[in-house]
Amino acid sequence: MGSRETVEVTGHLMDSGILSRVLDDIREYGGEFVIEEFDVGRDAHDPSSARITVEAPDDDALQRLLMRLQTRGVNQVSHGDAAVATADADGVLPDGFYATTNLETQVCLGGRWLDVDNPEMDCGLVVEESPSGDLRVRTVPLSDVVRGMSVVVGASGIQVTVPDPAPAAEAVASFEGGHGPERPQAVLVRQVADGMRRARASGGRLLWVTGPGVVHAGGVPAMVALVRAGWVDVLFAGNAMAALDIETALYGPSPDGSAPPGHEHGHEHRVRAVNTIRRAGSIERAVRDGVLPSGVMRALVTEGKRFVLVGSVRDDGPLPDVHTDVVEGQRAMRAEIHDVSYCLMMATQLYAVATGGLLPASVPLVCVDINPAIVTRLADRGTGQGRGIVTDVGLFLEQLALELVPDYRRG
Amino acid sequence: MGSRETVEVTGHLMDSGILSRVLDDIREYGGEFVIEEFDVGRDAHDPSSARITVEAPDDDALQRLLMRLQTRGVNQVSHGDAAVATADADGVLPDGFYATTNLETQVCLGGRWLDVDNPEMDCGLVVEESPSGDLRVRTVPLSDVVRGMSVVVGASGIQVTVPDPAPAAEAVASFEGGHGPERPQAVLVRQVADGMRRARASGGRLLWVTGPGVVHAGGVPAMVALVRAGWVDVLFAGNAMAALDIETALYGPSPDGSAPPGHEHGHEHRVRAVNTIRRAGSIERAVRDGVLPSGVMRALVTEGKRFVLVGSVRDDGPLPDVHTDVVEGQRAMRAEIHDVSYCLMMATQLYAVATGGLLPASVPLVCVDINPAIVTRLADRGTGQGRGIVTDVGLFLEQLALELVPDYRRG
Amino acid sequence: MGSRETVEVTGHLMDSGILSRVLDDIREYGGEFVIEEFDVGRDAHDPSSARITVEAPDDDALQRLLMRLQTRGVNQVSHGDAAVATADADGVLPDGFYATTNLETQVCLGGRWLDVDNPEMDCGLVVEESPSGDLRVRTVPLSDVVRGMSVVVGASGIQVTVPDPAPAAEAVASFEGGHGPERPQAVLVRQVADGMRRARASGGRLLWVTGPGVVHAGGVPAMVALVRAGWVDVLFAGNAMAALDIETALYGPSPDGSAPPGHEHGHEHRVRAVNTIRRAGSIERAVRDGVLPSGVMRALVTEGKRFVLVGSVRDDGPLPDVHTDVVEGQRAMRAEIHDVSYCLMMATQLYAVATGGLLPASVPLVCVDINPAIVTRLADRGTGQGRGIVTDVGLFLEQLALELVPDYRRG
Amino acid sequence: MGSRETVEVTGHLMDSGILSRVLDDIREYGGEFVIEEFDVGRDAHDPSSARITVEAPDDDALQRLLMRLQTRGVNQVSHGDAAVATADADGVLPDGFYATTNLETQVCLGGRWLDVDNPEMDCGLVVEESPSGDLRVRTVPLSDVVRGMSVVVGASGIQVTVPDPAPAAEAVASFEGGHGPERPQAVLVRQVADGMRRARASGGRLLWVTGPGVVHAGGVPAMVALVRAGWVDVLFAGNAMAALDIETALYGPSPDGSAPPGHEHGHEHRVRAVNTIRRAGSIERAVRDGVLPSGVMRALVTEGKRFVLVGSVRDDGPLPDVHTDVVEGQRAMRAEIHDVSYCLMMATQLYAVATGGLLPASVPLVCVDINPAIVTRLADRGTGQGRGIVTDVGLFLEQLALELVPDYRRG
Repeated sequence: MGSRETVEVTGHLMDSGILSRVLDDIREYGGEFVIEEFDVGRDAHDPSSARITVEAPDDDALQRLLMRLQTRGVNQVSHGDAAVATADADGVLPDGFYATTNLETQVCLGGRWLDVDNPEMDCGLVVEESPSGDLRVRTVPLSDVVRGMSVVVGASGIQVTVPDPAPAAEAVASFEGGHGPERPQAVLVRQVADGMRRARASGGRLLWVTGPGVVHAGGVPAMVALVRAGWVDVLFAGNAMAALDIETALYGPSPDGSAPPGHEHGHEHRVRAVNTIRRAGSIERAVRDGVLPSGVMRALVTEGKRFVLVGSVRDDGPLPDVHTDVVEGQRAMRAEIHDVSYCLMMATQLYAVATGGLLPASVPLVCVDINPAIVTRLADRGTGQGRGIVTDVGLFLEQLALELVPDYRRG
Repeated sequence: MGSRETVEVTGHLMDSGILSRVLDDIREYGGEFVIEEFDVGRDAHDPSSARITVEAPDDDALQRLLMRLQTRGVNQVSHGDAAVATADADGVLPDGFYATTNLETQVCLGGRWLDVDNPEMDCGLVVEESPSGDLRVRTVPLSDVVRGMSVVVGASGIQVTVPDPAPAAEAVASFEGGHGPERPQAVLVRQVADGMRRARASGGRLLWVTGPGVVHAGGVPAMVALVRAGWVDVLFAGNAMAALDIETALYGPSPDGSAPPGHEHGHEHRVRAVNTIRRAGSIERAVRDGVLPSGVMRALVTEGKRFVLVGSVRDDGPLPDVHTDVVEGQRAMRAEIHDVSYCLMMATQLYAVATGGLLPASVPLVCVDINPAIVTRLADRGTGQGRGIVTDVGLFLEQLALELVPDYRRG
Repeated sequence: MGSRETVEVTGHLMDSGILSRVLDDIREYGGEFVIEEFDVGRDAHDPSSARITVEAPDDDALQRLLMRLQTRGVNQVSHGDAAVATADADGVLPDGFYATTNLETQVCLGGRWLDVDNPEMDCGLVVEESPSGDLRVRTVPLSDVVRGMSVVVGASGIQVTVPDPAPAAEAVASFEGGHGPERPQAVLVRQVADGMRRARASGGRLLWVTGPGVVHAGGVPAMVALVRAGWVDVLFAGNAMAALDIETALYGPSPDGSAPPGHEHGHEHRVRAVNTIRRAGSIERAVRDGVLPSGVMRALVTEGKRFVLVGSVRDDGPLPDVHTDVVEGQRAMRAEIHDVSYCLMMATQLYAVATGGLLPASVPLVCVDINPAIVTRLADRGTGQGRGIVTDVGLFLEQLALELVPDYRRG
Repeated sequence: MGSRETVEVTGHLMDSGILSRVLDDIREYGGEFVIEEFDVGRDAHDPSSARITVEAPDDDALQRLLMRLQTRGVNQVSHGDAAVATADADGVLPDGFYATTNLETQVCLGGRWLDVDNPEMDCGLVVEESPSGDLRVRTVPLSDVVRGMSVVVGASGIQVTVPDPAPAAEAVASFEGGHGPERPQAVLVRQVADGMRRARASGGRLLWVTGPGVVHAGGVPAMVALVRAGWVDVLFAGNAMAALDIETALYGPSPDGSAPPGHEHGHEHRVRAVNTIRRAGSIERAVRDGVLPSGVMRALVTEGKRFVLVGSVRDDGPLPDVHTDVVEGQRAMRAEIHDVSYCLMMATQLYAVATGGLLPASVPLVCVDINPAIVTRLADRGTGQGRGIVTDVGLFLEQLALELVPDYRRG
């Protein structure tokens, strides 16, 4: 063993299970460790802190391990400036680049700590000089790397901060560990409503990420009511969800509700609905032209809310509003992340995973799905505020509208 | 090929898929068939009928195939009297015994057609003479066979009737084929409520079959309200559901709802709760003594409703009311089947399967679970009225109480 | 009711359940029907045929219903030429366009029946004149419509043919209805191996569609052996599967297999592996440069096999070979569909659904996944040859390699 | 707050996550805590230890919390003798009884520490005096309590020991946290085979707990081979598994494997098979009489292995060997637990949960199921050696037989 470094971590280490994960990481990366100091606090409310020396076979392995540990909020004790290298090709980061977390991050350059502008997962860190000569550090995804950029390499000179669990965790504290269906569902709905109220009261924007299951489960009336009452500021979705919403608006269900909306068998309706919107030119123009009489997409347009639709390989059409280039789509999503202070993900794995990587860890994020596997996967990511609820999306939306929309009545 | 027989079947053969299943059965039993006549009706509302000659390798195989076909409502064309043999040992049916379906059944004896008293699946048919000399045919499960009983053997002289799909199917028509989450959940809740209203209006009893998931999902307040408002006449459950309901009544959740009811980790509470009821002697006595302050079991006692609890191998305790002998438990359930005209099964596979076999096919049966595998399994049994809903049991009960209990308010 | 049309359908109508689905469709589209003739054949091996008059509220509804029925193989009895209209905008089909199925299709033009070149689902039909003056009909997806194209509208003058179930169905006959885990898994593996042998013997190409679960489940060694032995001609996948395969090749697992491949927690490895390939310029160049030492992607390159990688919104990077534009990606997949005579889909919903729409219904298609919901969804599509197996992808590949690769030994 | 007590716990506290669970428990029971001492060891291999003062509202709550903490291996520091009370009714433990874990347990009586004979979960502890005057402590389930027994109350004077993770955990270390399908399945099979070899080499018995899914998935040939080769000493199952195995032996599948074993639709076969065994009198007699030609149950009889079948409410028949009284069934299982040193659970939730409570925590236990929810539930119980594998039971058995049975060939 050759390379070693001393790191430290502070927080509710034991009851959050973080320390256990840190030690798992070290083993997984083939490292060894010695716990130099461990201050456990005394009572239930004290944070604890640990100082650990980690050792890896060589410096390259050590740097990678140190980056890995930063995803848990573990920082190096001794640090000088971060090291920087130059990107020698478009779209490619220098070897040994620092791979980002979505935690609040600071980089030491010229002896000063600079905040990273936009924490995002699995990016590089670019150092830029402003016209006034100030240094600035921001994340850059692989696809946006330009030859000549100055990029941080190695894990030295970088600090991350795990979000303070209060008050967000207060709101959803009882979700803790409970992806399962073992919590009274009515309580969960109320907690989500409270979180949304707090987020809006703080001036932040509410981001929804949804899949076609929202329409299948009959959630359109509730979601339209929530859009109209101002509880949706931005929607991220794919062609499937928007096209199903539009198809249902155009072709059904029958007035007595006897025919199911979004019936899989009527697939031919889907492509016909998409063609109708393509003819109009965009969803917004279809609404203006009176072609699109109802649904979630219409409500977003009439309320002046934002949406980003990104394509996938299974799309029919797609709708003219869909970003068919997924890298462009990611950029469009990134451009809408600002000021988001609450994120609700429903009935979509693909778009939820995509959004989870873009969102700073400090944004509370609730994932609702009837499939426990999806909920577990999303709620388990990193040290963020992710929480999962396994429930029926249709009934969840119904109850959420009853909580948040004063005059909402079951129709 | 040697043995053959001509059978006939009438009904909505094609759009119900029955004919396709009949032909599958014939192949599966190694038989061959010739369709002699097929009258398809003319329009959508006409029933169709088919006359088919089936052939099997030998008479034994033929008889078994004919019995199999009866589970689809397929009867023999030519029939004389049913054949009868004598049981020569307790608990054992004669070789070649007729294995029952849960369809309405008639047996030809002495040239007259007699109704079977209590259709139940996988039983034998016993022929008995009343003191007045009348013949009577009833089902008998293996465990209740007594040496000397006269038992029907073979499939001759037996007719079954598939329940008329209207009006029960009218009520739940749109469930058709929809175990999946692809139907607006709010519509489904309303259809179940309508079915229950119709069943009660007809003077029948409402049977509920529940598992501990009802408590885990926070369904106790809604279910208590439904019991009090008269929407539960009989409950079938196991020790686990009743013990969890009682544990939650005795030990939690905390008043602010922050602690989960039925939390797995507090298993020690379960055995302590069970011991408390064992000390009282029975759930009823625990209620009378003021030991059991709340919950579903208490509501059943105070409202004078019936419940049958049957044990399973994983039980702790069990509660003193539990039938620890499962054959005795089945008998107790059988004794409560009479006059049931609607059955709601929630969050239990074990007790739902058990009940499904006992109930006549004519009783509408709705199975609600968050696990699609369980719903599919239960809704697919036989030609009965079984329908499945994949949803969150907690929110489903909440909405059902909002539909059926005038003053129910979300607490 | 105004508009009506007489249609006919031939095949194993009853035991395939097709007739039942046809009648469901008619009801769902608000139509009525009269069965004019029904010839049921006599014995188990005879096909049956039906002639049905369907009626819809207006001609528009009737045309849509007739198109719908064609997905079941139902054709109009009376037909003249197909009607044709001109596309008046790029990317938009004329109103009332004929929406295609993936069944073998013929179009009547100038009194002659022309085969559609490349049946694909949810496209339009374009009529083109060759330089020699011959007419030709091919499918065109929405995104490839060019202003001025002649496009078939309405359902008249179009015939589809449901694929003859033999011998493909013979091979997989016992899968029938069995998405569930209720079939001996070893038998299923053998049937898939037989299907692949037959497909290759017929000179066709073998298409695989895979997700990252193949790597997670430890299927890489078996799949590499199958590639080397010539059992994979084309691979469709996303960035996630290829990147995970490459990450595992570059960073693990450890030689003793103690560390899991594709461990979620080591996400940082993923972006580093992708960056390495981006630096090389392509997967192929990374193999040539000796940068990529092992794995499925390497085996495809060294064996000269084809692969198409299409991006999705959750991708990191992505790899340089990935089509980031999903419409371009669909075109690349379409270009590889030719001569495919067997398709195996494993551990991916997204790419499997995408491929299912592109493949002609006549290509046998097996979907393998541990998640029953995904298998059911894929195996249920249309009248195609789709069959599903719910099993462990890792052990399935292990057994498949034991069947098909003579010297394969469990490593 | 009034009552407090100081406790201590030793082990790999942090990386096992135990400490985090301990603090969760304290909060859940409404308690407070102060960490008095925390010795973390220095390197990766050192155990750590903690001394914590816990406080609860009153003594009753404190005692319950202390019992709860013992399920985590947390013991009181100061202890005199355990307190004892007398059972005043059959089947009822005294108030405040100590509820057992399945950890190795010692009780202090008369100043001496006595080992509890048979650790089992959720029992009471009975103190008995032998004829020679020695004291003895054993677990007693509620149903076996007899009036007058001396029963331990409260948590004082009791110590538990968490099993040493090596070498059992060494064998399955890489399962850690991996219920998911994210581990190479072939490696998992080999680890289970190694665990079984080690268990047998140590002279212990191998216990299998199986559900009907083993037959559905085609696992019978592999399991029969494993029985014959001596890898199954005891089987716990229900009527369903045994009856399906016997039904398949009597009625199918057809020689060419085309008909599925255990086909749900042939339910009538089940009751007929059960009747056949009832006529013989027992499974053993049916084997001796030549009535039962093949299958797992036959192999157990001919190899002289033990089995315990316990009934459930959904049983048809049941088979004459089935304990219809579940409490009697539990006693029969308890009688076969001795010397079990490895337990394999497959495709059953009910019998696996039942067995998990009876087995001492020191017995390695592997749960195999295709349903992740079942695996998670079983592998998460307590501090025991439970590990879960989400995979296909049929292919798992096939591979296990290839590992353990020298001449096993795929049939």
